[in-house]
Amino acid sequence: MSEMETAGSLKAALPGDEIVARINELGNISEAPGQLTRIFLSKQHRAAADLILRWMREAGMRAHLDAIGNVCGRYEGDRPGLPCLMLGSHYDTVRDAGKWDGPLGIVTAISCVAELNRRGRRLPFAIEVIAFADEEGVRFASTLLGSRTVAGTFDESVLNSRDRAGVSMREALEVFGLDPGHIGAAARARRELLAYVELHIEQGPMLEAEQLPVGVVTAISGATRLAVTLTGMAGHAGTVPMALRRDALAAAAECITAIEASCRADTGLVGTVGAIDAKPGATNVIPGRVFFTIDMRAASDAHRSKAVAEVVRRIEAIAKRRELALQVEVTHENRSVPCAPWLKSQVAAAIAAEGYRVFELPSGAGHDGMAMVDIADIAMLFVRCRAGISHHPDEHVEVADAAAGARVLLRLIENFRRS
Amino acid sequence: MSEMETAGSLKAALPGDEIVARINELGNISEAPGQLTRIFLSKQHRAAADLILRWMREAGMRAHLDAIGNVCGRYEGDRPGLPCLMLGSHYDTVRDAGKWDGPLGIVTAISCVAELNRRGRRLPFAIEVIAFADEEGVRFASTLLGSRTVAGTFDESVLNSRDRAGVSMREALEVFGLDPGHIGAAARARRELLAYVELHIEQGPMLEAEQLPVGVVTAISGATRLAVTLTGMAGHAGTVPMALRRDALAAAAECITAIEASCRADTGLVGTVGAIDAKPGATNVIPGRVFFTIDMRAASDAHRSKAVAEVVRRIEAIAKRRELALQVEVTHENRSVPCAPWLKSQVAAAIAAEGYRVFELPSGAGHDGMAMVDIADIAMLFVRCRAGISHHPDEHVEVADAAAGARVLLRLIENFRRS
Repeated sequence: MSEMETAGSLKAALPGDEIVARINELGNISEAPGQLTRIFLSKQHRAAADLILRWMREAGMRAHLDAIGNVCGRYEGDRPGLPCLMLGSHYDTVRDAGKWDGPLGIVTAISCVAELNRRGRRLPFAIEVIAFADEEGVRFASTLLGSRTVAGTFDESVLNSRDRAGVSMREALEVFGLDPGHIGAAARARRELLAYVELHIEQGPMLEAEQLPVGVVTAISGATRLAVTLTGMAGHAGTVPMALRRDALAAAAECITAIEASCRADTGLVGTVGAIDAKPGATNVIPGRVFFTIDMRAASDAHRSKAVAEVVRRIEAIAKRRELALQVEVTHENRSVPCAPWLKSQVAAAIAAEGYRVFELPSGAGHDGMAMVDIADIAMLFVRCRAGISHHPDEHVEVADAAAGARVLLRLIENFRRS
Repeated sequence: MSEMETAGSLKAALPGDEIVARINELGNISEAPGQLTRIFLSKQHRAAADLILRWMREAGMRAHLDAIGNVCGRYEGDRPGLPCLMLGSHYDTVRDAGKWDGPLGIVTAISCVAELNRRGRRLPFAIEVIAFADEEGVRFASTLLGSRTVAGTFDESVLNSRDRAGVSMREALEVFGLDPGHIGAAARARRELLAYVELHIEQGPMLEAEQLPVGVVTAISGATRLAVTLTGMAGHAGTVPMALRRDALAAAAECITAIEASCRADTGLVGTVGAIDAKPGATNVIPGRVFFTIDMRAASDAHRSKAVAEVVRRIEAIAKRRELALQVEVTHENRSVPCAPWLKSQVAAAIAAEGYRVFELPSGAGHDGMAMVDIADIAMLFVRCRAGISHHPDEHVEVADAAAGARVLLRLIENFRRS
């Protein structure tokens, strides 16, 4: 009952309806008719930035665009120039996206500041809200451009990357109205930040399975991606007896089954074979060569490294037993980023104070915190999304869950104590 | 030692060198530079037919082209008009083919007749050699056109099929100089044939593994082809825990492993998953839908049907356990064609008489006998090919093995007794 009362008492102040209305408003700013696609530095991306600037200012913040296109709002503390609690998420999207991935964290943070502003409340620290310009990395195949700029880890060589149409990032920034020469100066210093906290949709099904609107993130999982090629011997599907085959696809199938079994046996580990290609790929020919990918993630680097090594050992054993040539290449490696315990416990306390069971989960997806950790301790608050669907138009968050996320975030801000 | 003597005594009469020289001559008649491609009714196909016509006539046969382009040669028995022992194979090729698949049976049969003719030997039956115009079915995606014409099972509706360039089979026949209206009349009656015997390269590795130049075929295996679609749920590779996944590729991998295990456990059965496609097919997305093919073959229809049913049951169980939707479609079904025991035993006797161990094996690949069985009992004699490679430029037969095949075929002809 206390849960209902708490919900009732804050509902007036932080209505989920306003959040959802703004999500819809942002969701309508798209460069593709009938779907949501808002790519870094497009005209629509600029329109979204302007809208966010307006909302920030209406919430009582000073706001500006930085040199990469991040929308930066600041709500001063009880005196000017205090270090800040930074809140944020991203306002770019994938192609044919859902409207919640990114914007929910921005809109909710602005609503929280607006509520403090309405109450005339100042805290012993500033609050900054950042809407990162690029997290998805769709346009220039390089992710986290916004948060890397803020963290001071932006790689200036990517300014020369070109999009599908041949436009360089440098040119696109200028068309957007920004000066690429100022990107270095947009970096923030560690002393300016007390912490970075991001509210985001889960993009997975765990909160739904737990019947909880919110959860506290333990870490942003690191990921290792492997490209595996198995080479055996192609042959006629009718004339080569089973015992004389060196079938690359049968071997790959055994590998995929082993990867799944390894990951199932190990809580906190996920492993996925997402792409596969068998050559020559005819119904009546034994596949002589198969390529497949592996994506493995765990909340700790040690855990992931051990699991990757174990999977590679199992694949090697399968290839050896079947007399196939094996090539394994690491194509991508992302360190795991743990959420700071002192900050995580404040998120957990806010969740508990709002009457919800505290549920911890890793973030399997990447987020801006992966870059922000270079200048601040980070934490994340996840909000339930329907069926775990994300990066898809069916991505959906219930109004009640958006409101629950906002209440938890506001409580976190109000109760925030520096480490 | 008797093997060596026998080989020596016939070597002069039936030199493998002549057979290999003719294989090379035919192999040079190609429509593609630097590779062998001789498609049904092409200009090169016609040139090959003319060469075979000449060889048949030089061997003492009357020869003509029938209405589908089969090259038909006849060597009369000890009086005119006797029913024949028919020998043959095909002279079309796949694209980028080997030169032995098909031509070896034609050239060897002509050499055998030439040898009888040289000796002035007439038998109490006629010998006919047919070089079938189309077995591979590359141009019009319909196989066995030559032997179906002879067997009277040619489906006239395929005359309207068009090739890649939009040319209909009817038009192509006319350009070749044939009258499609006469195809029906090219059919032969059962009473005209005593048997159909084909010499062909094995296209598999079993004779090589047995260290034998020749083997006797038990049956042309029937084949069932299935198209399988598994539908689960796509999802983010990082955010969906293993226990909540409905991964269509992990399920397909389990199916492929089960198919292989079923076939390995069952002598005389082969099963192949040759093609696979996983959607959406991105490294970081759990596959929601997977399509794959199954090709299963066995020497008897009952054996194959039972095995296919068992495999389908296992796939159904996997799909059910993993809560995936399953669609299984039979896309192709070929009956098994047994070689006639009375004829097979004469092939075996000829092999034994030439001093080789008699080794029986099924033909996993299809052959013209599949059509010829409708008007005659059939048998096949396989000749070893290197590493079992076929439908590939590396296809290779040793001269000594070509000669061994010719000696066995000649002995079979000379000792032939009707059933």
